[in-house]
Formats: sequence, structure tokens, C-alpha cells
Amino acid sequence: MSNYLLNGKLTAKQGQQGELAKILIEASRIVSTAKGCRLYVIGRAPDDRCSVYITEIWDSKEDHDQSLKVEGVRELIAKAMPLLDGPPAKGQELEILGGAGI
Amino acid sequence: MSNYLLNGKLTAKQGQQGELAKILIEASRIVSTAKGCRLYVIGRAPDDRCSVYITEIWDSKEDHDQSLKVEGVRELIAKAMPLLDGPPAKGQELEILGGAGI
Repeated sequence: MSNYLLNGKLTAKQGQQGELAKILIEASRIVSTAKGCRLYVIGRAPDDRCSVYITEIWDSKEDHDQSLKVEGVRELIAKAMPLLDGPPAKGQELEILGGAGI
Repeated sequence: MSNYLLNGKLTAKQGQQGELAKILIEASRIVSTAKGCRLYVIGRAPDDRCSVYITEIWDSKEDHDQSLKVEGVRELIAKAMPLLDGPPAKGQELEILGGAGI
């Protein structure tokens, strides 16, 4: 069974990128304890002052989906939602074929 | 200094996705020995039979750029080029702000 990679992008309201990133970094501490979590990193693009990117790797999509039930995650998602400039776009889902580092 | 994440996408000619992925997985074994390489994984999207995605994390952009000089990498790039359906698109560069797993 191959690992599951999810590339997500959230767009913050003007001036809220930093706060949104902070909440997601806080979330990464909880989510990374969930079964099957290999990577959960938060990033930004050099030329983009609103978007926050999340790159996740899981042992499986099921493990990822289960992690949304981990205590504390829903509260952080609720904390982040008011900072968003519109609904989150659907993330890019990839099947990992091989490589190094996980 | 924050880590450097690079999301790359290569489009293979019809029927060459598997062969291209194989070459990139081979490359990952060499590249992952380069200084500062934290992650180098190869993936594909469920609905896309031509593209191969590369997700890389490095200690810095400089480490990534230096890795292109590692012995064997150029040969593999040369091996992959004829399989491509056009020049590689510029990858998405992200600065990692925090998270877990690297």
C-alpha cells in the first residue's frame, strides 16, 4: 500500500497569513501524533502574502481522514475558519510511488 | 533559516509515466545522499496518466541547487529528458514555516 500525499492551500484574509500559519503549526503538533502521519508542514510562497500551504504525507488516506477526529483538531479548524478568505480549495492528492525521506 | 520545499511536475509522453517514475525513484537514491536533503518523493495523481510529481524538502535552496552537481544526477536527468512531453514546468517553491516530520 503506497503512502498518501496531500498538497493543500488555504487563502487568508488580508493581513491574516501569519496568524493562520501559527494555528496550522499548532495543529501540526497534534496531527503529527495521529496514526500514520509522516509529514505535516506549513509553508508560504515567496510572492504570495495571503496563502498558506500544507504538505502532508500519511501511510494511507484513511489515516489522514481519521486524523480529523483527533481531539483538538476540530477546535483548531474552527479557530482558523474565520481567518479564511473563502472556502478551502480541494487539495491535490498524490499516491507516492517511491523516493526517500519518509 | 527555514527549510525549502519544491513541488515539481514532469509530464511524460503517452505510455512513459511508469518509466519516468522509475528513473526519478532511481534518482531519489542518489539525491537523498546530498547535503541537506530531507525528502525526495515521487508521486502520481489518481486521474492523471502522464504526469509525475516530485516533492522535495531541503535544508536550503542552495543545498537543492548543489545537488544537481552530485555524480549520477545529470546522467539520470539526461535519461529522463527524452521521455518528457515538453520542457519541465517551473516548480512551486515554498518556504517552510513550521510543522512536523522533517
